[in-house]
Amino acid sequence: MLNYKINKTNGLARAAVIDTPHGRFETPAFMAVGTVGAVKSVAPWELKKLGASVVLGNTYHLMLRPGEKVVMSHGGLHGFMRWDGPILTDSGGYQVFSLGERLAESGRIKGDMKPARITDNGVTFYSHLDGQKHFLDAARSIRIQQDLGADMIMAFDECPPGNAPRIDVVRAVRRTHVWLKESIKAWTNREKQALIGIVQGATYKALREQSAKFVNGCDLPCNAIGGVAVGESRAKIWRAVEWSVPHLDASKPRYLMGVGEPADIIEAVKRGCDMFDCVLPTRLARHGVVWAGASSGIKVNKKAALPDGKIFAYGNINLMLSRYREDLNPIDKSCGCPTCSAGFSRSYLRHLLSENEVLGLRLTTLHNLWFIYRLMNRIRESIR
Amino acid sequence: MLNYKINKTNGLARAAVIDTPHGRFETPAFMAVGTVGAVKSVAPWELKKLGASVVLGNTYHLMLRPGEKVVMSHGGLHGFMRWDGPILTDSGGYQVFSLGERLAESGRIKGDMKPARITDNGVTFYSHLDGQKHFLDAARSIRIQQDLGADMIMAFDECPPGNAPRIDVVRAVRRTHVWLKESIKAWTNREKQALIGIVQGATYKALREQSAKFVNGCDLPCNAIGGVAVGESRAKIWRAVEWSVPHLDASKPRYLMGVGEPADIIEAVKRGCDMFDCVLPTRLARHGVVWAGASSGIKVNKKAALPDGKIFAYGNINLMLSRYREDLNPIDKSCGCPTCSAGFSRSYLRHLLSENEVLGLRLTTLHNLWFIYRLMNRIRESIR
Repeated sequence: MLNYKINKTNGLARAAVIDTPHGRFETPAFMAVGTVGAVKSVAPWELKKLGASVVLGNTYHLMLRPGEKVVMSHGGLHGFMRWDGPILTDSGGYQVFSLGERLAESGRIKGDMKPARITDNGVTFYSHLDGQKHFLDAARSIRIQQDLGADMIMAFDECPPGNAPRIDVVRAVRRTHVWLKESIKAWTNREKQALIGIVQGATYKALREQSAKFVNGCDLPCNAIGGVAVGESRAKIWRAVEWSVPHLDASKPRYLMGVGEPADIIEAVKRGCDMFDCVLPTRLARHGVVWAGASSGIKVNKKAALPDGKIFAYGNINLMLSRYREDLNPIDKSCGCPTCSAGFSRSYLRHLLSENEVLGLRLTTLHNLWFIYRLMNRIRESIR
Repeated sequence: MLNYKINKTNGLARAAVIDTPHGRFETPAFMAVGTVGAVKSVAPWELKKLGASVVLGNTYHLMLRPGEKVVMSHGGLHGFMRWDGPILTDSGGYQVFSLGERLAESGRIKGDMKPARITDNGVTFYSHLDGQKHFLDAARSIRIQQDLGADMIMAFDECPPGNAPRIDVVRAVRRTHVWLKESIKAWTNREKQALIGIVQGATYKALREQSAKFVNGCDLPCNAIGGVAVGESRAKIWRAVEWSVPHLDASKPRYLMGVGEPADIIEAVKRGCDMFDCVLPTRLARHGVVWAGASSGIKVNKKAALPDGKIFAYGNINLMLSRYREDLNPIDKSCGCPTCSAGFSRSYLRHLLSENEVLGLRLTTLHNLWFIYRLMNRIRESIR
């Protein structure tokens, strides 16, 4: 069950609500990533307070540890991580490829171990944890996602790297479509879980159009655009979106996968996208990089025009720079996040991060998540 | 300024309140340790909610990074870590010895670097961070603690290891007394900071008595018993306390340093001690070990009689054991801590800890701190 109701549009941008078995969320929405069953360092009650309304879980990580059966015994991911709001799980495909490559690059693959091997039947891969061999295909991905019990689940697809030659993308699109049909066949828990199909086609117009039409033709409750933000330029992201959106039913939500840079989210909303996920806010925070607007006093070198034409400008503060060593200011005096409103100084945050004190990355994570949820509020307001 | 007011006694146990420039706390009190200016992983607003009323800061760590002057520019440790309640700082002496030894054992001391060298003048030591040479004596320790601005500061002392031969302890006691006089001389901020003297003497009756009398004779606002829980048996801790307490003015609080095992705190309260600090609850939690009472269903193999004679029984749960892999129960169903009341299962906690996910150690830390603050409540009630 997934009910999408548009309240207001502004150009291609839509302000809407989505109802799921675990409640409603407003779109455009950002989904924080809870890789191993937790948004890194953040407790569910904190997510609620920050304004999170929907979170994402990673099938790949959870199937390896603790295993989907352990999660299922908790009543699914909701019971496991004690998050009672909407959850979306990915198919595991993307991690299989990207972590497999990282494993290969790191030299941790030994003996006859190989990076993930993809055939039309599915993917053979080796766990990034212990090198154990696994097999994943559409049927298994959907079965695992059913055990995890998220409100929204993703079809199994092939996401080629951003620099893949056309012939590889053609094959990936073909497989993605075959696997989508297989995903639909394996999809049995239709009342409780909404299946989402994924458009592939990289930076090739004809392939994007073909894929969007095919996915749209499957008439699923939501459509996703995948294969972006995988190494290509930003301009190419927009073209991939612009080629896909016109073919994706306007009465259904559109989920742009893996995009989390604030300016990019704004651009995508104006091109008709409604849902986003990315590790960027939490990952940046762990490295001491926080987002802030002009009220922080920093030079804001990034910007985008909101749907109502107003400019949203911001920049990155790298708290690890020595210039913040004695800076008594909070990240942004006018920010209402728990970190800034408690008055923690940049100097203190820098100190905790340098000491690898967990409270440091917690406080920067809370700030960045607050920042992006406030951005989503502003985007929704600017549409209405 | 430190005002100690006894409300009720029960044998040697006392229920009292202590007023400081940053507010009141009830005793017997447990002080969580905020080594680098943060109780590991815990935000100040969480400490408040858990029931913390006073925290401890480590002079050694803060003088090395970020340096006491940076802390002072924040208005001291209160402003730096955004904790507006009472704070106590140690003298730095203990870390100088113990981290110096750890550095030596780890083989990280290179070239002509040596472990800490102690003379009557003070201690020459090498930073555990970068091996840089430093010097600390009573005057410098007190000056640094004045910059840190805690409500209670500790005299500079020498704390010999638990297995030190008598001749070393004699020398340590002598130095501790000389350095106490020097600490008193350097103590200028008397209105805002209460200086605490430390009894040494290890497991030697005559030395403990001599030291307690000397320290008591200095007529400071609070007296501490140091040099316990440094490797000796529990029985020897009690003897050290029993030899010292009769000589320490009953109208002043007594602080037993470094004791944090719940049963030991109870025993010490019954012997006249009022304040405690230890990394045990937070360190155990980070290793997946949590405390729980019989209501958790585990075998409780530790116990102590409270001042009112009732038995306090509890045990350790090592969540890393494989038996908890699929355990759907919270640590303790009847526990009111944030972790248990949110319903996180042992299985989930074990999973997060195995994955080195920060939320895992946060949740176990919250539980253990809640446990010890509830214990302190019960101890105070049992005296009243």
